[in-house]
Amino acid sequence: MKKKIAVLASAAMLTLAATSSMAQFAKGEDAIKYRESAMALIGSHFGRMAPVAKKEVPYNAEQIKANVAVLSVLAQLPWAGFAPGSEGGESKDDVWLDPEGFKQAEDDFLAAMDKLTVAADSGDFDAFRVAFGNTGKSCKSCHDAYRKEK
Amino acid sequence: MKKKIAVLASAAMLTLAATSSMAQFAKGEDAIKYRESAMALIGSHFGRMAPVAKKEVPYNAEQIKANVAVLSVLAQLPWAGFAPGSEGGESKDDVWLDPEGFKQAEDDFLAAMDKLTVAADSGDFDAFRVAFGNTGKSCKSCHDAYRKEK
Repeated sequence: MKKKIAVLASAAMLTLAATSSMAQFAKGEDAIKYRESAMALIGSHFGRMAPVAKKEVPYNAEQIKANVAVLSVLAQLPWAGFAPGSEGGESKDDVWLDPEGFKQAEDDFLAAMDKLTVAADSGDFDAFRVAFGNTGKSCKSCHDAYRKEK
Repeated sequence: MKKKIAVLASAAMLTLAATSSMAQFAKGEDAIKYRESAMALIGSHFGRMAPVAKKEVPYNAEQIKANVAVLSVLAQLPWAGFAPGSEGGESKDDVWLDPEGFKQAEDDFLAAMDKLTVAADSGDFDAFRVAFGNTGKSCKSCHDAYRKEK
């Protein structure tokens, strides 16, 4: 049986900012768990497309489109978790010491994700491949600067 | 600056089944991390509405609607993570010993989520409150049966 994702959101654009005011974390560790959970899901949904981009697995336009739709929602989530007082986990202190740089990295990633969405919706493999690569670069650039080495 | 959730998904309904065939986990621990990350996010986005349902915080219809839209996407995710050979983590073995019962619990939760989405979209507080309570019951029922005690 197929499960359906009711990404109805009939107005098509919802401001996540509207939910942020509810997104209070009682403890710093709650914020850490939240952002690291979101990053783990982003990593999974992004990474599973790598074999397609590398032409190791055939390109299925509908599959990629559906996965990118999920990813575009997940991509919005981690940021609220970098709350003041929630230093630690996998994050370098630079997240809080350099908030402007971190915000720029977030914006760059979200801009890359927007282009990935457009490319995935187009159904064109080369457009997808390029946008996928650029999004991956924005991930790596931010991780290099703001994530502890594993 | 407001961040926008591009829950475009213009066809309104996407089959997540389409992405499942990509959702192979290389190792059991990857599946465990995936499903527990999804559950953590679901817990956060669900739990943050509890003070509203309890009338401790004013009802903001747009805020609830946006949050439920995110939750409706997250709600689809954990299930692929209960893959064969990924026993462990917070899951009781009953997930794999009683697959029909577990599937029924998943279906009950998703049906409750559908009703919560309708209620949130309606903007009616009492409809939201009832649907929120029923969804919470479906969470608890499944956790009681299939999640290890913490």
